[in-house]
Amino acid sequence: MREQVKNLKYIFRPKSIAVVGASGTSTKVGAVVLKNLIEGKFGGKIYPINPKYNKLAGLRCYPSVLDVRGKVDCAIIAIPAMVVPKVLEQCGKKRIKGVVVLSGGFGEVGNNELENKLKEVADRYDICVIGPNCLGILNPYKRVDSIFLPMYKLKRPRPGGISFVTQSGATGTCVVDLAAQYGVGVSKFISYGNGTVIDESDLLEYLETDKKTEEILLYLEGTKNGKRLLETMKRVNRKKPIVVLKAGRGVKASKAAYSHTGNLAGNYLAYDAAFRQAGVVVAYSLDELFEFVKIFNQALPKGKRIGVVTNGGGLGVLTTDVIEEQHLELVEFSPETIKKLKRIIPPYANAENPLDIIADADSGVYKKTLGVIKEAKEVDIIVVIVLFQAPAVDERILNILINLSDEKKKPVVVIAVGGEYTQGHRKILESYGVPTYSSPSDAVKAVKKLVEYAYSIRSGSGR
Amino acid sequence: MREQVKNLKYIFRPKSIAVVGASGTSTKVGAVVLKNLIEGKFGGKIYPINPKYNKLAGLRCYPSVLDVRGKVDCAIIAIPAMVVPKVLEQCGKKRIKGVVVLSGGFGEVGNNELENKLKEVADRYDICVIGPNCLGILNPYKRVDSIFLPMYKLKRPRPGGISFVTQSGATGTCVVDLAAQYGVGVSKFISYGNGTVIDESDLLEYLETDKKTEEILLYLEGTKNGKRLLETMKRVNRKKPIVVLKAGRGVKASKAAYSHTGNLAGNYLAYDAAFRQAGVVVAYSLDELFEFVKIFNQALPKGKRIGVVTNGGGLGVLTTDVIEEQHLELVEFSPETIKKLKRIIPPYANAENPLDIIADADSGVYKKTLGVIKEAKEVDIIVVIVLFQAPAVDERILNILINLSDEKKKPVVVIAVGGEYTQGHRKILESYGVPTYSSPSDAVKAVKKLVEYAYSIRSGSGR
Repeated sequence: MREQVKNLKYIFRPKSIAVVGASGTSTKVGAVVLKNLIEGKFGGKIYPINPKYNKLAGLRCYPSVLDVRGKVDCAIIAIPAMVVPKVLEQCGKKRIKGVVVLSGGFGEVGNNELENKLKEVADRYDICVIGPNCLGILNPYKRVDSIFLPMYKLKRPRPGGISFVTQSGATGTCVVDLAAQYGVGVSKFISYGNGTVIDESDLLEYLETDKKTEEILLYLEGTKNGKRLLETMKRVNRKKPIVVLKAGRGVKASKAAYSHTGNLAGNYLAYDAAFRQAGVVVAYSLDELFEFVKIFNQALPKGKRIGVVTNGGGLGVLTTDVIEEQHLELVEFSPETIKKLKRIIPPYANAENPLDIIADADSGVYKKTLGVIKEAKEVDIIVVIVLFQAPAVDERILNILINLSDEKKKPVVVIAVGGEYTQGHRKILESYGVPTYSSPSDAVKAVKKLVEYAYSIRSGSGR
Repeated sequence: MREQVKNLKYIFRPKSIAVVGASGTSTKVGAVVLKNLIEGKFGGKIYPINPKYNKLAGLRCYPSVLDVRGKVDCAIIAIPAMVVPKVLEQCGKKRIKGVVVLSGGFGEVGNNELENKLKEVADRYDICVIGPNCLGILNPYKRVDSIFLPMYKLKRPRPGGISFVTQSGATGTCVVDLAAQYGVGVSKFISYGNGTVIDESDLLEYLETDKKTEEILLYLEGTKNGKRLLETMKRVNRKKPIVVLKAGRGVKASKAAYSHTGNLAGNYLAYDAAFRQAGVVVAYSLDELFEFVKIFNQALPKGKRIGVVTNGGGLGVLTTDVIEEQHLELVEFSPETIKKLKRIIPPYANAENPLDIIADADSGVYKKTLGVIKEAKEVDIIVVIVLFQAPAVDERILNILINLSDEKKKPVVVIAVGGEYTQGHRKILESYGVPTYSSPSDAVKAVKKLVEYAYSIRSGSGR
């Protein structure tokens, strides 16, 4: 690993942060970053940097990073592009090893020379630079946060296992916001913008050995080093599943991507071939990116045979439709399983897959039937449909589902469709690591990806 | 129109309702229905019917409908299946013209004889019967509500233009719950269960001339009269767009559907062919059903040329991808449009489609650019992407988008991805009839359906 990549630790786990371009004008990027660090309760030292102020937000403000007495691990830079190289030079002299450049105005608007200059300084001092033209990073474990969007508009997620590598800042934050909303835990979020010094492959390499990272999301518009990306994805994906969304697939979209981050989006067929070769999980939309990654905290399934339990007949039918259309298997229950189920379910219900335990089933019926399904040898994956709207279903169902998922013997996914009441319950399940879906098709498509990944890992050189 | 179909008016707009099987035991269906009618503020008379009680919920309770003095327009029946024909006979004698039978235990569990008996009585007295084995109906305009799910678990939607015809009760309520959550207005919800007396074609026929109904959702597992359904869909769809979801498409799913509502799901190819011939909008999942129908309150587009405005570059790229993949057209702006746009957008932004007005654009920039796009002759459909998370975007954007949609000159859809803050704003837009989507793919797929519908209407015998 290059020294600069190793230095990412100063960005993710800094003991002190300088905010260059900190400001008293509340709408300025530097002001929002400073405010978010303070209000977000970053535990280390914070040094506002701006020659115009002596004090900001109750903290002493310094003319430049060179004027700070103590050690500075990381600098977050939000100043006009033209002066960035000069400030980076000062960071080098101050031996700051991690820098996040939020400022835009480099290669993406044709200022290639300025971007080259930035890279030259960074390389000379072995500075790890994220950006420029980015939203920077978020590490909920250490409360490091350079995302310059107000917290009331963009919620911050709880600490967890998903790391997020994204070329587009805005697109990335949308998913962060969704993760926060649904209680899904995030390890690290990195919006790397132009990727001048640290690119997507560097980040994957770092996350490969990052202890807090279990799954990786990658939003890509293009890459400057496809060969290395392929090799890195291939290696990392075996240890930690990578879900990738490539934007700029068509001719016009590719052009739009170019004027966005200055990256040639290239031929999607080449990307697609590389993704297949690497065995990564391919998403085609933002929703899929989010829906797919959630399932990878579950046990890898032994096969593709699905057992479905539902208190809503229609949703069972819809789920069966998608299972068939996705070429997964709605398994026939064994005589042994059927015998056990018949003792539990009402006489007018059928002991067949999908198992419709009827709308008046309470949490106890769920517990007993799921107890049978989880032991059934013919079932590899458990899909539980819960209509929380049904009068007999109470809070106990949450514990039953959380325990089932926690056993990590078979993958478990929950389908729950509905408004506020249902979504409140989904959020509790998600925050305990149970993947939940608002529709049968989302759930089954995610299951398909998990099954494919399991096959690919087993047929590859092993995990 | 058959007399029994005409009599649906007694179910949708009754002046008085008898609840047969009303109960003092709060978990019983009859108790929930009675409670929901009272708490839901149904404006007419309510007669609880149950020989065991003299009074229920502060109302006088009668031994049978025949004991009620005044006129009864509608009876909601929640009693064991075996006694339903006898009670229906009493309804006939009392000249009750609308009856909702919530009770299950008929054809769907093999009791065909009992179901035939029910039909015989209904036909003899010209009673319009919804059900049996259903959740019944909801009319937010008249606060008629037979859905026996507690209101705190299942929100009721505001009055609006979408009517919902569903064979499966549970599946249907999920979408009602979503509609309520997002502020989407509903005209009538009808869960028709076994459809013994009134089937899906009857309901479509009734909704065809129903003044409050503008669009129709249809969730179907199977039909007993395919020919009539095709003819009815074909005719009604020209006046009011029908979005249909057929469940039980595959072999196993079809079997599951049979044990659910006792309907043969049949060969999906036959259904698909019929849907195409009728020109209805086909959905393949519950989400699509809901996402597709929302767009049909917009003006029909003249063509398939889309103009995109965004404050997030990445989302612009993703939207362009889906536009290309769906074979719609991301139009090139005319020199005139470009000239006008250049006067508005910042110098470092490109006056190209998708129009990236950059993350620091405020509501004013949206207003001006959308003003240009709505006049641009080359644009048929306007797609607006709003990252509400961006610091400069404030509440004014809501009015701008509502006014744009209200003009009804070109269809407008909004894409907004994110958590609580974003969803709060989406809800406001939805409640003013602006279709909003949580992802580019959902939005563009809905646009595709609108474009296809517009083409099909134009190529058909006209609207």
